[in-house]
Amino acid sequence: MSYALHYHRGIPGRGEFVRLLFVHAGTPFHDLPALPAQDAAQHFAPPLLRYTSAADAPPDFAAEVELSQTPVILYFLASRLGLAPSDEAGRLAVQQRVETILDLANEVHDVHHPVDASLYYEDQRDVSLRRAPYLLQLRVPKFLSTFAAQVSASGNGWLHSSGVSAADLVLFHLLEGLAYAFPRYFGTLKKEARFAPLFELQSRLRETESIQRYLKSEARTPFNEYDLFRHYPELDAEYTGKV
Amino acid sequence: MSYALHYHRGIPGRGEFVRLLFVHAGTPFHDLPALPAQDAAQHFAPPLLRYTSAADAPPDFAAEVELSQTPVILYFLASRLGLAPSDEAGRLAVQQRVETILDLANEVHDVHHPVDASLYYEDQRDVSLRRAPYLLQLRVPKFLSTFAAQVSASGNGWLHSSGVSAADLVLFHLLEGLAYAFPRYFGTLKKEARFAPLFELQSRLRETESIQRYLKSEARTPFNEYDLFRHYPELDAEYTGKV
Repeated sequence: MSYALHYHRGIPGRGEFVRLLFVHAGTPFHDLPALPAQDAAQHFAPPLLRYTSAADAPPDFAAEVELSQTPVILYFLASRLGLAPSDEAGRLAVQQRVETILDLANEVHDVHHPVDASLYYEDQRDVSLRRAPYLLQLRVPKFLSTFAAQVSASGNGWLHSSGVSAADLVLFHLLEGLAYAFPRYFGTLKKEARFAPLFELQSRLRETESIQRYLKSEARTPFNEYDLFRHYPELDAEYTGKV
Repeated sequence: MSYALHYHRGIPGRGEFVRLLFVHAGTPFHDLPALPAQDAAQHFAPPLLRYTSAADAPPDFAAEVELSQTPVILYFLASRLGLAPSDEAGRLAVQQRVETILDLANEVHDVHHPVDASLYYEDQRDVSLRRAPYLLQLRVPKFLSTFAAQVSASGNGWLHSSGVSAADLVLFHLLEGLAYAFPRYFGTLKKEARFAPLFELQSRLRETESIQRYLKSEARTPFNEYDLFRHYPELDAEYTGKV
């Protein structure tokens, strides 16, 4: 059995959502650079996962897979790494949570690139300054309210009643990213009792031995200003709920 | 067996990607209004699919499902409606294409809402005018090049070697949406030989009896300026490949 993750060097990016699944499951994988575009003409953008199964894989599991699209890679891995329920309805419910969290991650990215990803932040900062209050005061709280309702409904402190899943690890990285990008904001958000179950989920995962060891290791690329989550102090603000 | 799709009235929106799967498969479904938010606290946003299986469903298929997130609904339906390969690697390859096309649909939406979805277009038109050239001259062609490479590789005129799939129907609606929103642009794009396989795919689906009947029926909500795809003439431009 072999897993190879191809992703850009130097940024956690979307590859990090995938890495955290491997880390939490204790499953080794090859962490490799992104492929030149001509080698991946079938795929739109990294990450790319290449997988070869073990001889004893279940018969309905594919033997070889080459996959791109972060949510699809996460769906594929969650089943294999024990991070999804074994029943179809449960697997899809977890995936629905994964996709929604990734949607919010995209919105967090777009706040520093509201005109186009090919332009420097500095060349669209005026629009970022207009957009950031909507992200921080309306969008993030709207998403987090849904996630908090899901944690309440599960009754076990995780996003789904089956226990810790891929969705929790994706949410963990999103919350870590928000804390890095918007420290003032995150500090005030933590005072909101209605979101407390989410910050408890985050702490619980950060204190997991495997995650803690990973976060302190050289295998982990620190957040930085080439990434999805960027710390631009001028975009940060206290949470007030008002734009 | 019963399928109910809950979605906003009056716009094709993301519900239309789901409807086209039912239409192409000839599978009846209940087309219902979106639910009040308090009835869907577990879900972030419409569409929402409610499904109850037939007594003779395969044993590994869930009996009852309530799902949101367009890509997850499409993945669920593709398997059931004969619009995905029967093997896991093929199903995931189709889903990877679906997710990438939906990413582009999101970018097409964001061009008229580059600051926030809660604001009127008129209040962010200045930013839309800055963003539209990047969408039309860089982003759409970059995505379409990938889709064209996939059609070439399949060898059968569809996005995947297994034949017509959910991905083709999602691409169909995206191309219809682009033609509606940006008629000048679409006219010049159609002269690009490298994208011809995509426009042929679009025509072939439009001429399918079931799709043609649906497009002419009252069941189909026309494109309009409350939707993902909007025709604002000031954002339209010829394709030149230069911003």
